[in-house]
Amino acid sequence: MFAPLSNDSFLRACLRQPTDHTPVWLMRQAGRYLPEYRATRARAGSFMGLATDPEFATEVTLQPLARYALDAAILFSDILTVPDAMGLGLSFADGEGPRLAHPLRDEAAVAKLAVPDMDKLHYVFDAVTSIRKALNGRVPLIGFSGSPWTLACYMVEGAGSSDYRLVKTMLYSRPDLMHRILEVNAAAVAQYLNSQIEAGAQAVMIFDSWGGVLADGAFQAFSLAYTQRVLAQLRREYGGRRVPHIVFTKGGGLWLDEIAASGPDVVGLDWTMNLGAARARIGDRVALQGNIDPNVLFAEPEQIRAEVTRTLESFGRPGAHIFNLGHGISQHTPPDNVAVLVDAVHEVSRRMRAAE
Amino acid sequence: MFAPLSNDSFLRACLRQPTDHTPVWLMRQAGRYLPEYRATRARAGSFMGLATDPEFATEVTLQPLARYALDAAILFSDILTVPDAMGLGLSFADGEGPRLAHPLRDEAAVAKLAVPDMDKLHYVFDAVTSIRKALNGRVPLIGFSGSPWTLACYMVEGAGSSDYRLVKTMLYSRPDLMHRILEVNAAAVAQYLNSQIEAGAQAVMIFDSWGGVLADGAFQAFSLAYTQRVLAQLRREYGGRRVPHIVFTKGGGLWLDEIAASGPDVVGLDWTMNLGAARARIGDRVALQGNIDPNVLFAEPEQIRAEVTRTLESFGRPGAHIFNLGHGISQHTPPDNVAVLVDAVHEVSRRMRAAE
Repeated sequence: MFAPLSNDSFLRACLRQPTDHTPVWLMRQAGRYLPEYRATRARAGSFMGLATDPEFATEVTLQPLARYALDAAILFSDILTVPDAMGLGLSFADGEGPRLAHPLRDEAAVAKLAVPDMDKLHYVFDAVTSIRKALNGRVPLIGFSGSPWTLACYMVEGAGSSDYRLVKTMLYSRPDLMHRILEVNAAAVAQYLNSQIEAGAQAVMIFDSWGGVLADGAFQAFSLAYTQRVLAQLRREYGGRRVPHIVFTKGGGLWLDEIAASGPDVVGLDWTMNLGAARARIGDRVALQGNIDPNVLFAEPEQIRAEVTRTLESFGRPGAHIFNLGHGISQHTPPDNVAVLVDAVHEVSRRMRAAE
Repeated sequence: MFAPLSNDSFLRACLRQPTDHTPVWLMRQAGRYLPEYRATRARAGSFMGLATDPEFATEVTLQPLARYALDAAILFSDILTVPDAMGLGLSFADGEGPRLAHPLRDEAAVAKLAVPDMDKLHYVFDAVTSIRKALNGRVPLIGFSGSPWTLACYMVEGAGSSDYRLVKTMLYSRPDLMHRILEVNAAAVAQYLNSQIEAGAQAVMIFDSWGGVLADGAFQAFSLAYTQRVLAQLRREYGGRRVPHIVFTKGGGLWLDEIAASGPDVVGLDWTMNLGAARARIGDRVALQGNIDPNVLFAEPEQIRAEVTRTLESFGRPGAHIFNLGHGISQHTPPDNVAVLVDAVHEVSRRMRAAE
């Protein structure tokens, strides 16, 4: 059904197999910093118009690959598709973040919550298949979901938050309600990611974007435990090939050992963690993905190359490293600087291997 | 000149001396969650009207002490007084955060920057002396400043930021300009804190509120190095008594060892760090301050007491611990819950000592 892979460096690095260069992709690589993305979005009329139309989603997913020598593509979608399918009413006001019309604020709302029928998310799975076909084996396709906790943050707050007061108030005062939301979310995320795998995703990534706002103790009980529950239910193989599982917890560096022990193949790191220190702590149990500050892309080419070199060298001996940013790329990024970064990762990492 | 201290538990814990209970104070304890604060602020007309008037500053600093059995007072002020004295033009629009009218955006602006005449900050030192007198020896008074890096964030961005794009762009593309700002800031902060000590502050705290947004490597070079420079210049004694130095880096848990080694008496921790793990890492080199999630104060009294107990027990054997939140108290906090927390810290920590 799908063409064989011509560049499998990303999948190999995820599984800690040797590669001739360090593979690189960028969180949010298909996005507003690209003029061609903005043009497609204007044609689609809205963000949800883009995300719910497999043709548009395919077009924007492939746009950064036309410009840069990236080693992986990632499904263009939003992490709130699952809460939307649960009936919470997702919308995007222009210039603002996402909003849910029906946030979970009381016991009755939590009691009604259920794993959505995956048919409501068929546009996502259709997009996965469409993108996979359009990639034609060039690089692997990554599927993704928000973590149970990160989804719960939006589901209770109803929007982004600076202090997470509502969701944490529920967590501390009604842990029973919070656990029920997280149980439903974990089951939904597992089904959602498995459906993406069946539709063609060759790796899957769980974004625990808000795990790092939790207190020690609360993180383990309300975030990691449910991410682990998802991991335990995910397909490990499909179509005769291993499907790597990636977990990225923004601000999770202090819990690296526990995250690495929870079962993923790859742990994503933000820029606060030294890659060499991370490796010293967890050894070769998992591959690492990351972790340059996206703001490095606002510097001059020479400085971008220096930061790429520093990051590759901090990891040390090549292998089991997927280069990425430590967070999504900024909408203000000059597109030419992305080429500098991607090319530098390839050049420097090849040179490091040659010097071994 | 000042009355002798009747409760020195806070100063003793900072210096790792035995106390009969774990002392407690709360970051931003004088603030909007208190109706009496809101009433005083209304009389003052504005936030700056409060902060620049020693009488008003004294009144609001003492308000939480009238309600709660807190073991320390902290100067009511703003961290942007120093950039304001540098001529950057501080203002507060209602319902928004602080703004600087003249942020540092180019080489010329950075070249003009200089350590301000401390006379421009006399209202702060007057407030310190006035508060110290009004406290009448009840508990010690803590003075404070933003760290050189945290001040630089505001000085370049001109306001709060979600991505620190402008200041990080300068950091990565013009590190020479960033180092010049930080040198000036470090000299200014050292003078500012020493003047507070001479005016009556019995301990001083450096808030590196935005240290945690930096990448590993950049944190050490652009934040910690300049905090350390301040620490090296601070008075260690005044009036025959040691003046403890506290450093709080929000999101700095990964760099705990380096922060502890930089010279402070006390390291403040946010809620992501396990106190027992912190202690295992740094031993008894410094005292620790923290670290409950301020959102715990939205739970029921029973749950607040349970979290207090958990936090005290995570630290382990009593001593060298100052109880605090891991960040400033929320303006939405029910005032009665603060009493529950403060009383629980005293009760439980006394009980733990009795059980030794």
